[in-house]
Amino acid sequence: MRKHIVACLALTLALVLTLSCVSLAEGFTAYNPPIVETTAGKLRGFMNGSTYVFRGIQYAQAKRFMAPEPVDPWEGVKDAQTYGPVSPVLDATPFSDSLVNQDEFVWPHRYWVQDENCLNLNVWTQHLDKDARKPVIVFFHGGGFDNGSSIEAYAYDGNNLSVFGDVVVVTVNHRLNVFGMLDLSAYGEQYKGSANNTMKDLIASLTWIHENIESFGGDPNNVMVFGQSGGSTKTALLYHIPAAEGLFHKAAAHSSGNITTMEPGDSARIAQLVLEKFGIAPDEVEKLNDISARELMLAGYEARDQVSKELGRNVRFRPTYDEDYITTEFASFSNDYPMMIGSVWSERIGTLHKGTGKNEWADAEVEAKLTEVFGEDKDEIMAEFTRLFPEKKRQDVLYYDAARRGQVRDALAARMKGITAPVYAFLFAYEAPVNGGITPFHCSELTYVFHNAEFSECRFATGASPEALKVQDTMARAWINFAYTGNPSQEGLEWLPYNETSNNGTMVFDTNSAFTILDDQKLCELMLKHM
Amino acid sequence: MRKHIVACLALTLALVLTLSCVSLAEGFTAYNPPIVETTAGKLRGFMNGSTYVFRGIQYAQAKRFMAPEPVDPWEGVKDAQTYGPVSPVLDATPFSDSLVNQDEFVWPHRYWVQDENCLNLNVWTQHLDKDARKPVIVFFHGGGFDNGSSIEAYAYDGNNLSVFGDVVVVTVNHRLNVFGMLDLSAYGEQYKGSANNTMKDLIASLTWIHENIESFGGDPNNVMVFGQSGGSTKTALLYHIPAAEGLFHKAAAHSSGNITTMEPGDSARIAQLVLEKFGIAPDEVEKLNDISARELMLAGYEARDQVSKELGRNVRFRPTYDEDYITTEFASFSNDYPMMIGSVWSERIGTLHKGTGKNEWADAEVEAKLTEVFGEDKDEIMAEFTRLFPEKKRQDVLYYDAARRGQVRDALAARMKGITAPVYAFLFAYEAPVNGGITPFHCSELTYVFHNAEFSECRFATGASPEALKVQDTMARAWINFAYTGNPSQEGLEWLPYNETSNNGTMVFDTNSAFTILDDQKLCELMLKHM
Repeated sequence: MRKHIVACLALTLALVLTLSCVSLAEGFTAYNPPIVETTAGKLRGFMNGSTYVFRGIQYAQAKRFMAPEPVDPWEGVKDAQTYGPVSPVLDATPFSDSLVNQDEFVWPHRYWVQDENCLNLNVWTQHLDKDARKPVIVFFHGGGFDNGSSIEAYAYDGNNLSVFGDVVVVTVNHRLNVFGMLDLSAYGEQYKGSANNTMKDLIASLTWIHENIESFGGDPNNVMVFGQSGGSTKTALLYHIPAAEGLFHKAAAHSSGNITTMEPGDSARIAQLVLEKFGIAPDEVEKLNDISARELMLAGYEARDQVSKELGRNVRFRPTYDEDYITTEFASFSNDYPMMIGSVWSERIGTLHKGTGKNEWADAEVEAKLTEVFGEDKDEIMAEFTRLFPEKKRQDVLYYDAARRGQVRDALAARMKGITAPVYAFLFAYEAPVNGGITPFHCSELTYVFHNAEFSECRFATGASPEALKVQDTMARAWINFAYTGNPSQEGLEWLPYNETSNNGTMVFDTNSAFTILDDQKLCELMLKHM
Repeated sequence: MRKHIVACLALTLALVLTLSCVSLAEGFTAYNPPIVETTAGKLRGFMNGSTYVFRGIQYAQAKRFMAPEPVDPWEGVKDAQTYGPVSPVLDATPFSDSLVNQDEFVWPHRYWVQDENCLNLNVWTQHLDKDARKPVIVFFHGGGFDNGSSIEAYAYDGNNLSVFGDVVVVTVNHRLNVFGMLDLSAYGEQYKGSANNTMKDLIASLTWIHENIESFGGDPNNVMVFGQSGGSTKTALLYHIPAAEGLFHKAAAHSSGNITTMEPGDSARIAQLVLEKFGIAPDEVEKLNDISARELMLAGYEARDQVSKELGRNVRFRPTYDEDYITTEFASFSNDYPMMIGSVWSERIGTLHKGTGKNEWADAEVEAKLTEVFGEDKDEIMAEFTRLFPEKKRQDVLYYDAARRGQVRDALAARMKGITAPVYAFLFAYEAPVNGGITPFHCSELTYVFHNAEFSECRFATGASPEALKVQDTMARAWINFAYTGNPSQEGLEWLPYNETSNNGTMVFDTNSAFTILDDQKLCELMLKHM
């Protein structure tokens, strides 16, 4: 054969050059990835630019329906380079009839491998030295307590937030639906509190963070938790879990910060029906372990629907105030832990994820629609709307989620009963500049909070426009400042707590974000008469 | 409320500025996405930088087990912004025991929604005018005929190849396993040829391209098809399908270009067992339509395994030479359509996707391992190996897939019987610079051919190093030049056809790619005595 041209020496030189070119912090490269020692053993991550990334770190282990326990220690080095499995869920299941989600383009998903053994988390950090002690920002995903995962949306990728704020970002998987909230306590001491395993998992993740995050450059004494939708309930519930003391220090609840739980007894009744369905007697409950995860999940939902019928109300999987692990009263530490609470313009109103064409409507068409919806209250509603949002199009009022705004006010009021530390209110009002303009929908603020307006699949719905980049800078900076100091203000954008002093001021994030006295109660009341 | 600072005029100005900043070819933006007219109706895509992207375009429709038919025309504009569903497969199914694939980090997957109605394709192009007439590069995915999809791997994203080469890239989904290859022809005229629906789907995709690609800036008279693994069989089979004439004009078969098919009758026997399984009589075959896709797929695999037992050989879902739709003989056009055929260094040998630590072995350790594996042939093998690959480490020989190299030689010989147009041979030998170095594994060349060494999840395993970027430039350029001209040579890297004139020369892609007389038959024969 003709020999390759380059001699060994040149190759060696090229190799050295290459390795030094891609060499990153502390000399780690793709070729030579970072390894970190945790309480249970060593983990091998990888570099993403300047970021040390560790994916799928197991933070606890749990037998089916049992409380989470510390991970068994291991010898040698375990890989933490791929995402771990996520909790089994009904959504996103192949062979469903739902096909591809309608919102896929503007809210791109990661489908992923599902398994009950899903107690794992992901870490993005700029440091591996224990002296760095950077704020830790922990994300609890949404999807009620039925769906979702730490990686369900591309928007949840923590790399860009870690880089932008020099913070440690952690995203968490935990058990959902029947796996995290089936109350089997009647069938054995080992199942005590099984109705709240989903929250016990989250506390276990915070415990792992508390014990290990220093090795990832994080400060165990400065941990911020934030969550959206179902994640906001998870976040708000931390204030009712005495075991959470010292494991977090501030929190943000997005859309909307209200807490909804199961009534005591609801989950026990579901458990009873599940056992009956499989012909399992009360004294042989361990036979549940022989049933496949999928069958069990389907049975759980079937039983849930049956219980809803029996009780004449909509029963959903949620944690339960058992006054033991989760208490109705605020935990003693709550007063010291500040919060951010807010929602987005449209939430689930209207054709959220598709262009409505509203920006193309002629004036007459707009007025006709407003008259059709608001009738005799139109003028009063529009006067209020224009007063509050002078820069919005008149038709945008049709997509303003008045009901959710009320829930946010309720959530703010409820939280402030147990939290004397500052509570900050926000509204995300930035219209995604895609497909003719889409008012901000449920979840959409997360792309900007995570500083992911240019990231991968996310950038198609933001257009990666200068406006979008400005919005992400403003929002991510607020969350980062809150993580660093407990105050989300930034230069040129003072953000006062929601209280009488600020006239219940709210930060409205938009092309030009502004701190505003968003007294939209009258607007919402008028609107709700017609929606 | 305090009114927002910016007046309407300023906002309008900002909006105009924004839109013009992100404005792209022909004024299309995220806000105002491109729309293309196809034979069946209009499609709305989106912009990714300079690229017009259309995802999930339905190219045909098919009832279960029926041949594909043209898509029903529609009014208005359909969205083509999200990937379409992919064929149901066993792999990557939630609730499997397989958890996350071991190779996930170096070969990152997209899991996705699965559905039988999966006859859709994706288009990336730099032009929407009919005069552009750029070469069309069509990718048939691998995964045997059981698994995979057009988007299974991040590496299959067509954007970067389209930009780098100014070509139109198309990736195709089609029916797999029982959905594409169950021979029901004994049960009704409507099922004639159902054993080959999987290939009929692919021909339908090429037909759609032939009829529509001009509107996407493509040249219907210059279509290159390439495929890897199972995709290479699909590609090579085109030369045996008379209906493919004029629908493609050149092809590349990766790993390895051999054709394996089902024996006539195998699939009919599987069909018989499937009907029996569900208690369906031969005259009520349409009852198969009442069975869920998942049950049907599982029954198909169960029957396949049963038939394997009956026949004492490994039956797998594959197309069948029925001498009608697919002929053993080369189709008449074959002589005119040039090919590229090749494989990668390690294919499935050894611990493919994980670092082996081989680059850290001490010399004595290397020699001990070589002696252990090759025994008395060690010196002769190493002499051959060093002659052929002087710049490789001695231990790399342990990961050289000698068996696959033989298959490639067989494939080259077989193809050249029906193709007098040039046939080009290649070997991908570039070690992924990740986790201590991983010899090139099955699939790994596709990251470089698609010019995706820096793309999204792919970049972690390439390190996005200067070396990796050089390799992707060289490989993508070769495929692009082949698409443009039928000759994959590029400046400084002449690539001669595999024939006596070139002494059966092979392009070896590596840090420094070189056209080589890769006469490794002796090496392989010696190695295979020991492996």
